Amino acid sequence: MHLPGRIVASLPDPSWVEDVGSIDGVELIASDLRSLPDRHDEIEVCVPPYMQQYDRSLFARMPTLRLVQVLTAGYDGLPEALPASVDLANAVGVHDTSTAELAVTLALASLRSVPEFVLNAQSGTWAASRVYDSLADRHVVILGYGAIGRAVAARLQPFEVRMTGIASRARPGDGLVDTVLGVEELAGVLPTAQVLIVTVPLSDATTGLVDDTVLSALPDGAVVVNVARGRVADTDAILSHAGRLRFALDVTDPEPLPPDHPLWQAPGVLISPHTGGPTTAFRPRAVRYLREQLRAYAATGSVPHIVHGPGSGKLSPHL
Amino acid sequence: MHLPGRIVASLPDPSWVEDVGSIDGVELIASDLRSLPDRHDEIEVCVPPYMQQYDRSLFARMPTLRLVQVLTAGYDGLPEALPASVDLANAVGVHDTSTAELAVTLALASLRSVPEFVLNAQSGTWAASRVYDSLADRHVVILGYGAIGRAVAARLQPFEVRMTGIASRARPGDGLVDTVLGVEELAGVLPTAQVLIVTVPLSDATTGLVDDTVLSALPDGAVVVNVARGRVADTDAILSHAGRLRFALDVTDPEPLPPDHPLWQAPGVLISPHTGGPTTAFRPRAVRYLREQLRAYAATGSVPHIVHGPGSGKLSPHL
Repeated sequence: MHLPGRIVASLPDPSWVEDVGSIDGVELIASDLRSLPDRHDEIEVCVPPYMQQYDRSLFARMPTLRLVQVLTAGYDGLPEALPASVDLANAVGVHDTSTAELAVTLALASLRSVPEFVLNAQSGTWAASRVYDSLADRHVVILGYGAIGRAVAARLQPFEVRMTGIASRARPGDGLVDTVLGVEELAGVLPTAQVLIVTVPLSDATTGLVDDTVLSALPDGAVVVNVARGRVADTDAILSHAGRLRFALDVTDPEPLPPDHPLWQAPGVLISPHTGGPTTAFRPRAVRYLREQLRAYAATGSVPHIVHGPGSGKLSPHL
Repeated sequence: MHLPGRIVASLPDPSWVEDVGSIDGVELIASDLRSLPDRHDEIEVCVPPYMQQYDRSLFARMPTLRLVQVLTAGYDGLPEALPASVDLANAVGVHDTSTAELAVTLALASLRSVPEFVLNAQSGTWAASRVYDSLADRHVVILGYGAIGRAVAARLQPFEVRMTGIASRARPGDGLVDTVLGVEELAGVLPTAQVLIVTVPLSDATTGLVDDTVLSALPDGAVVVNVARGRVADTDAILSHAGRLRFALDVTDPEPLPPDHPLWQAPGVLISPHTGGPTTAFRPRAVRYLREQLRAYAATGSVPHIVHGPGSGKLSPHL
């Protein structure tokens, strides 16, 4: 026996209500949060829209609200919009598949000359035969060895590469990479890094991490893939090394990149418009995650992955 | 103790002699086979150049020649150029890494919209946000489940896909794919095949295999990757389905594609100029293979993978 309607949770629209489906002890309603929801005085858990504008000031007008569950990993500016009694949980694992897949796509496309082939097609040019680059046999350095870094390593493992992970602190290897080095050891691996994949979260410590010093240490022809945040890399440094190095960037600084920005035309630079997350892989994983989080909330009154609010720092407050 | 100089083997140039290095019982010399080698009357094993023209008529002028070892998987026209006493061995496994890597590259680049991003960069266009395609959750059908097909499957396994292999005859799965179906079952899997990767060898049975009937059975938006041979797919059929389907072709018919061919401009068609094999992955694998083959020849008087000549059909004649 379950208790229907005990907790009211709002999801971004009716399609989410349908996809998340029935959860014991939870009544799901839809709200896009552009205006105050009809049942704003009953909502206890609120999932705001993904990749669409909404009105953050509405949270303060929901007297029963206890948890805001976002569908993104990041949550810039949200804590400031929440009443002190409201917890904030982010999405963990939901974007790893899509982002890691893009990192591998960008590395492969860049190494295997896909941008050149696309441009050659415009003039009907069948390139003369030569020895092309492959990913196989390369030393790949994954800068940022959290969930996305490991998902990148898992995908690269069958490609006959050597991999090194770099995290904030050194730790033993994990069956995917031989070692995980601390970031203070980065300089030592750069001279042999033929592929550098950047997946670190943006923080004070990582802002501008990929600078002229880092890029200068990379060997000629190395490929730098950034699927983290634009500000992790220094745009001027990228521009000054473009050509000697190759870049495949899903994120830029500034973002979006204005039409006249020199990065668009820089040699050996491939740019995707921040498409790491929003793919067909997102929805089924987000639905599974919401089901897990809502079940946990119904069972315990809280959820894993609280990043701000009274429940942050507590592992499982109601158990 | 070894017997230096017992067998004389010619390699394409001095760099190959250096890379293959010392092998007991074998003396390595260099010849590009553009003219009769100085020691043509001593050469017992001949490795002709890879991706460079040479004079096939020279084989008939080498009286001690017993084995021609090519560095390609294919060997069109070579049997006709060889005296009846000469065996022909092809290269097995040398190109799998590079070709499978390209197949995955083309599938990912096409699905994740890399060609669109490359063209957008020309006009400085940051595409509006939308839900992009991912490879994850797709049903991938690998048409041709030999060494290259398995190498493709190994690389795709961590990408959270479902895979079906298609071979000339059905056989059990192998830990990579759940089942290997016989080619007569192809029609049954096409309606759910969101990615079709073609790796079959060219033969009478596979010429024109990917025709209008096959393409018509694929769902809208499916990606067809051809890393086999151009004539395996029907070019007119590709042109008539381009746009509804996406194509990523490393091989075309005709090849090279002339500058005015409509395939260059067809919507959703990505063309790489037959770069599956000639990458940096080739040389180290070819060197290892030649060392194995030459060691086998020195030890037994023959080699594995003889595809034509008196030694063909014998498993290991001297053991």
